[in-house]
Amino acid sequence: MSILAVGSVAFDSIATPAGRAENVLGGSATYFSLAASYFTDVRVVAVVGDDFTAEHESVLKKRGVDTQGIERAQGKTFRWGGQYLENLNEAKTDFTELNVFEKFQPRIPAAYKNSNFLFLGNIHPSLQAAVRREMDGVRLTGGDTMNFWIQGSRPELTETLKLVNVLLINDGEAKMLAGERNLPRAAQKVLALGPQAVVIKHGEYGATIFFREGAFGIGRHPFRAPALPIEEVMDPTGAGDSFAGGFMGYIASQDQLNREVLKRALFYGGVMGSYAVERFGTERLQSLTREEIEARFQVFRELTHLE
Amino acid sequence: MSILAVGSVAFDSIATPAGRAENVLGGSATYFSLAASYFTDVRVVAVVGDDFTAEHESVLKKRGVDTQGIERAQGKTFRWGGQYLENLNEAKTDFTELNVFEKFQPRIPAAYKNSNFLFLGNIHPSLQAAVRREMDGVRLTGGDTMNFWIQGSRPELTETLKLVNVLLINDGEAKMLAGERNLPRAAQKVLALGPQAVVIKHGEYGATIFFREGAFGIGRHPFRAPALPIEEVMDPTGAGDSFAGGFMGYIASQDQLNREVLKRALFYGGVMGSYAVERFGTERLQSLTREEIEARFQVFRELTHLE
Repeated sequence: MSILAVGSVAFDSIATPAGRAENVLGGSATYFSLAASYFTDVRVVAVVGDDFTAEHESVLKKRGVDTQGIERAQGKTFRWGGQYLENLNEAKTDFTELNVFEKFQPRIPAAYKNSNFLFLGNIHPSLQAAVRREMDGVRLTGGDTMNFWIQGSRPELTETLKLVNVLLINDGEAKMLAGERNLPRAAQKVLALGPQAVVIKHGEYGATIFFREGAFGIGRHPFRAPALPIEEVMDPTGAGDSFAGGFMGYIASQDQLNREVLKRALFYGGVMGSYAVERFGTERLQSLTREEIEARFQVFRELTHLE
Repeated sequence: MSILAVGSVAFDSIATPAGRAENVLGGSATYFSLAASYFTDVRVVAVVGDDFTAEHESVLKKRGVDTQGIERAQGKTFRWGGQYLENLNEAKTDFTELNVFEKFQPRIPAAYKNSNFLFLGNIHPSLQAAVRREMDGVRLTGGDTMNFWIQGSRPELTETLKLVNVLLINDGEAKMLAGERNLPRAAQKVLALGPQAVVIKHGEYGATIFFREGAFGIGRHPFRAPALPIEEVMDPTGAGDSFAGGFMGYIASQDQLNREVLKRALFYGGVMGSYAVERFGTERLQSLTREEIEARFQVFRELTHLE
């Protein structure tokens, strides 16, 4: 089945303890699309500037991603610079140049309207809501957000959360959104805002999915996928969007949406996130094979599996 | 089989967001022994003062713990006061009165010398090493330590680590001991100091066991046990020692020491830690049943188990 991703395309300048990379292709829609492309058909809606070349576009096209929804605007593509020199779990932003992204108004090509799944990357919640309202035939909507919107655009975010089936956020975001430091209680408060499930990402410790009572007909017991202990993290940028791409992509590849599918999706999310961080930018996500993905899935499974 | 625990018996005064408790029975040997008592025979070596009554001792005796190794010294029992008002993951110490614990010289009763397993609770590394040298017939020695010894008694600790088979520490301690922020690399550096395996506890995210190449004949792939997301943590005191008690107690209850036993032991560690924090002090550990332990083991297993 098909999945529509809406988010940012960016050029990132990144410094980590492993080195630096300048102006590498990034952005939430890019990481998500590449990760999801190993599982299902992906379409993308984003905006880029004059500096986005055919070569950049070919990164997505080579993975079979439909790029007709990438709008070209006059000016420069969104640029972000950040470093992880002190802490691999959290970027310190050096600069943000929104450029053409500042006036981004997602326009959904007619050919995308029949998409079965929707992922709302981390953009203004009002834009997320507008996209979701245009796509009322989707089976399931996943969404991301961040501290910036939780603090600065709470009313708009609250409206958007009513339209999202599965919210994917990290521990700090969940606690901030809920105003609650205990994780399972924070999860319940987030679910009360609208989503049927919330995936809370714990960085190197994996992720937990919490369900609203009765959601997807599968009861409310949480499920946790571990993350692989990685010795060499080269660049954490995009790990969360790659996780979302693996998670949503696997769900979209399955006929049924049940507990076992959601569990496996959580593992595939972790697998794609773990691959993303092995190289700078999207490099590793461009050249994976399904066999490599399955092999790491088995490693993840073995990591916690009792006979 | 039998397990000997050496550590502290204390009276704790604790403040948490859920309330306070004054002078409740605690200490590493107490939590460890109670947790391990659900799995195997436990003997304990510790020191207490005049204020340790028959009623206190009966807490251990009721669980079948052999208390003849608890030495009575003139003076008061070790007292500790701490609070978790800001952060449930880390105690802020209000006071430490070592009292009789200051001059603690573990004396091992002759009847304990045939113990099959040994747990060295968090005491001075030189005392740990002395005990270990007296118990040279043990099959496996587990040990704990803390930042205080890592920073202040590094040479003594280095000697002790050569005598410990499985070291149980938390993320921060592992990183400090290794001088390395990346967790799997820190684990490898800790293993290079002597232990065949290191269990690194991640608080609410569970624990990971890393193995030295060839240790226990089981390869070097790590294994991770998740922790239960707990909505009501009443008192985190003793969670680590209770984890160690479940882990070592389960190992001591098994004939074989193989990968599957160590995996299950890690889950039982998490189970006992999760029960410990549900009530103040050792209250919950005093009244468990094996059925409750098995039920939670299944919950933990279900939390990450893929069909």
